[in-house]
Amino acid sequence: MSDYRYPYQEGVFVLNQLVGLEQICHQAGLDEFAEGLAEAVLDEASKLGSEQLAPLNVTGDRLGATIENNNVIETPGFSNAYQQFCDSGWPSLAGNPEFGGQGLPNVLAVAVNEIWQSANLAWSLCPLLTQGAIEAIETHGNDQLKQHYLPKLISGEWTGTMNLTEPDAGTDLAALKSKAVPEGDHYRISGQKIFITWGDHQMTDNIVHLVLARLPDAPAGVKGISLFVVPKYLLDEQGNPTAQRNDAYAVSLEHKLGIHGSPTCVMSFGDNGGAIGYLVGKENQGLACMFTMMNDARQGVGLQGLAISERAYQHALAYAKERIQGTLRDGSRISIIQHPDVRRMLLQMKSSIQAMRALVYVARAESDYVNNAADETAQLKHQKRNDLLTPIVKGWVTELSQELTYLAVQIHGGMGFIEETGVAQYYRDARILTIYEGTTGIQALDLIGRKTLVDGGVAVSDLLSEMRDDLGAISAPELQDIVTATQAAVEHAEDAKQWVLAQAAQDASAAGSASVSYMMLMGYLCGGWLLTKSAAIAQRDLANEGADLEFLNAKIISARFFAEQMLPRVGALLAAMQSGGDTIMAMSEAQF
Amino acid sequence: MSDYRYPYQEGVFVLNQLVGLEQICHQAGLDEFAEGLAEAVLDEASKLGSEQLAPLNVTGDRLGATIENNNVIETPGFSNAYQQFCDSGWPSLAGNPEFGGQGLPNVLAVAVNEIWQSANLAWSLCPLLTQGAIEAIETHGNDQLKQHYLPKLISGEWTGTMNLTEPDAGTDLAALKSKAVPEGDHYRISGQKIFITWGDHQMTDNIVHLVLARLPDAPAGVKGISLFVVPKYLLDEQGNPTAQRNDAYAVSLEHKLGIHGSPTCVMSFGDNGGAIGYLVGKENQGLACMFTMMNDARQGVGLQGLAISERAYQHALAYAKERIQGTLRDGSRISIIQHPDVRRMLLQMKSSIQAMRALVYVARAESDYVNNAADETAQLKHQKRNDLLTPIVKGWVTELSQELTYLAVQIHGGMGFIEETGVAQYYRDARILTIYEGTTGIQALDLIGRKTLVDGGVAVSDLLSEMRDDLGAISAPELQDIVTATQAAVEHAEDAKQWVLAQAAQDASAAGSASVSYMMLMGYLCGGWLLTKSAAIAQRDLANEGADLEFLNAKIISARFFAEQMLPRVGALLAAMQSGGDTIMAMSEAQF
Repeated sequence: MSDYRYPYQEGVFVLNQLVGLEQICHQAGLDEFAEGLAEAVLDEASKLGSEQLAPLNVTGDRLGATIENNNVIETPGFSNAYQQFCDSGWPSLAGNPEFGGQGLPNVLAVAVNEIWQSANLAWSLCPLLTQGAIEAIETHGNDQLKQHYLPKLISGEWTGTMNLTEPDAGTDLAALKSKAVPEGDHYRISGQKIFITWGDHQMTDNIVHLVLARLPDAPAGVKGISLFVVPKYLLDEQGNPTAQRNDAYAVSLEHKLGIHGSPTCVMSFGDNGGAIGYLVGKENQGLACMFTMMNDARQGVGLQGLAISERAYQHALAYAKERIQGTLRDGSRISIIQHPDVRRMLLQMKSSIQAMRALVYVARAESDYVNNAADETAQLKHQKRNDLLTPIVKGWVTELSQELTYLAVQIHGGMGFIEETGVAQYYRDARILTIYEGTTGIQALDLIGRKTLVDGGVAVSDLLSEMRDDLGAISAPELQDIVTATQAAVEHAEDAKQWVLAQAAQDASAAGSASVSYMMLMGYLCGGWLLTKSAAIAQRDLANEGADLEFLNAKIISARFFAEQMLPRVGALLAAMQSGGDTIMAMSEAQF
Repeated sequence: MSDYRYPYQEGVFVLNQLVGLEQICHQAGLDEFAEGLAEAVLDEASKLGSEQLAPLNVTGDRLGATIENNNVIETPGFSNAYQQFCDSGWPSLAGNPEFGGQGLPNVLAVAVNEIWQSANLAWSLCPLLTQGAIEAIETHGNDQLKQHYLPKLISGEWTGTMNLTEPDAGTDLAALKSKAVPEGDHYRISGQKIFITWGDHQMTDNIVHLVLARLPDAPAGVKGISLFVVPKYLLDEQGNPTAQRNDAYAVSLEHKLGIHGSPTCVMSFGDNGGAIGYLVGKENQGLACMFTMMNDARQGVGLQGLAISERAYQHALAYAKERIQGTLRDGSRISIIQHPDVRRMLLQMKSSIQAMRALVYVARAESDYVNNAADETAQLKHQKRNDLLTPIVKGWVTELSQELTYLAVQIHGGMGFIEETGVAQYYRDARILTIYEGTTGIQALDLIGRKTLVDGGVAVSDLLSEMRDDLGAISAPELQDIVTATQAAVEHAEDAKQWVLAQAAQDASAAGSASVSYMMLMGYLCGGWLLTKSAAIAQRDLANEGADLEFLNAKIISARFFAEQMLPRVGALLAAMQSGGDTIMAMSEAQF
């Protein structure tokens, strides 16, 4: 059994020193909350996470969910935890006050969400998906949809789902076949959806399915997809739920490698005449609505990569301190944390997790800066940065989480392979993160295509400029080795961008071949940049009266480790990218 | 369900072109077998693997083994497959003819073992462990032990186990507590052993446990360990088994992340007065005997890394050819193998697997060259090479197998996470490979310490010289890009060696901190070297009449891919190494 504690000091450092929470609160007219807000909120959330959710993590893995007569029964204990979660007002933290939300910054919510996800990844998927549904309805829904659905979703009284994938339409949404036939003020939806996370459960009175489907006269491909709200129980005219069950059912559950506590449903719509659905946004504009849901969920999944790595780190660290193996020359026995290679693994986890957290929080704060921007220029600037960072957060953080959960198992030696130890669960659970909400390959294509080629590299150039400025401003001689290494990585990224603009623009297979290397390169760079900034802040604060020297020095060591051990990967990724796609495309299908 | 086929053409290429099977057969006085030997043997083994063992792989995963009254019942079907395996004479393939073996080269056995391990990793652990027991008894046992045990172990009539680990003595064997008390011609063994692979089963009449224990007056630490043979059923004076059960029992089975078909036992010796055991080698010399077992098993586990990667590749390749996602501009649908990033993942698997196979077979052939050496100088040379390559085979191949089985899941997208798809099993099964028979960290310490520092880098220098000669001899202009990249990697390795000799010699924490990077660097280098040699052979053979151009060109493409995409990692690993251990050691335990 591992205890989980939110790394409070780390989180507060990122929020206050890197993200600018005070500025965000000020812009949002929340000055009165700024002082001590984060600390108080994180403290409360940490209690719920550690005491209620974390112990249920293993239960979810062992018992999973079950299905009987098309009703999914969630893991025992999950419903009770969900009620406590709602009773304390957590779902509405960053919700729109117009619909009952508390209107606190998104970046504060992301820190709080880290707690739920570290504590219990499978359980936390339910509120995560609900958030995607909220975003879609809030951004694209008409007033009636907003009035009927948002208050209940924001309060957590109802949960939401995202119904995109079909057996022959996964990444390729153009191929989806579910149908929506107009009927008065609504539509009749039919079709089968797979991989629907928390598609059914008994924790709430209603579930709001967001469903992609195709109108009878819709154009082929992604231009003919529309998005619908399909509630599990129909509402009356006042928006109150009735006892009338909609024609939308979970018909089976998947048997998965991990996240057993999260019911992954096959959903069947319209087996008995058609499920009643309400259009979100305009007909055939479903893709844009879907991206609203998806972009939010993508950053959310990046956060999961951070959260599960943190949980795995805490587990591995506790073991490394307690497990005795080896003897010093004087005959005294030592714990494995004293072995250099174990320290290397722990530091790889610790420094990478700090880099991930910095990037995830900084990226999420961009949405707050967008919401509170003083003018359109500022808004556009932050929107572009948000869009640029999203595929890096999803792609890089989740890929790195594979390596880190792997190391957590490795630190345990043979015990890591035994399920009762518990660390293997993080390794299994993490495996979905590079797949759902768009695979790593899809994130990488998004980054190299829509986020780099389409704007001629401007957003990337802006980011690199900011990095150069930040690094150039660091004068502490103690940190020059770290600064120099990070500056070298910036220039590698400059070369990467130039290569993308010159080569990938004309050659789709070069772009496709290089895309994942490009995305990983940008991820390590962002991590290195934010850790170097953190080290500079820590170095500056060392002189403060009452400074926590242990903590600040550890931040500098982490940044140095990352620069020494992780940033060299940037050069290797650049070389791989620059090889282009010729070799990759040269092999015929038969030659594989 | 995936079908498995041994990659026959690849295997034969490595055996005939890289390993020098003909020369090995000639040296061993097996000229009459050389012509067509490998082909015929592999053909037969492939049938048994594909038809009998491969279908039982999923059964082992789902049903596992069970335990009742201290008797382990293996997965249904495993025993029948084992009987067929023995009836066809497979266990004795490379066995010593003095004890009923067929005396064929070890390198041929390694190719055959690849088949068993690809087909069914969990099942194949039983013969793998038996091989370790054979080596220990053959090298260190007295004549009576050899006469009593070797014929039955070599024929497969009995199986063997390795009983090393105890709850407080994993990597740290110095801490082991099991006792052996002399009693006439034998010893009474008592103690508990954990993680005992195939510690009990019903497939054979007897099981021969090799057990490390400590004599009453033994020195402390590893100098006080002795090795014993402890049969499940005692033998009479002629060496025939009796019905008398020895006091050695499996008392429980572990619940593991993978290899469910392989029973991992807690073994209890001496609960009823002491198990009867027979000394192997001399008292207190057990560590040397253990290393004899272990070195053999380490190369065997490296082979498992190759084998499971090959199986995962075949699964992913079949899916990539058959899964339709995406549409060309002309409206035609395409399978995902046409997407550049999917091709990248497949080529990463394919080229890495070729590199692994080349290294594993080449390393194993060294033991044949040792056995058949014309003089002591030649023998010593090959023994040194064998010793140098062993930690690279175990460490690098198994680490790389993690990445490759990961990619196999990734290629399947969401389906990869569903257990019924089958590919997740390879990912779970592979996870043990970097842990058992010495973790990656232990392999790396062996390489940097015993295999580099202890001989002043001579064995490494010899290997690098051979690489330089091989690469310098490649004149084909078509391959110069690959040759240049590989030569650069050789010089990086030269720098790495120099760094190890200069820095790590004086500073144990620098050695420990850099060791895994050093081992991985050497692995990629060996892979690149052997693939470049393969490309040169393929290029030469393109002009042969009747040459298989598709196959030979594919080998060149694989080598180029490896040089372009994988070899850049060598530079990154060198940089990580050269950072040394100061940062890694700087963090106090409390700061983690």
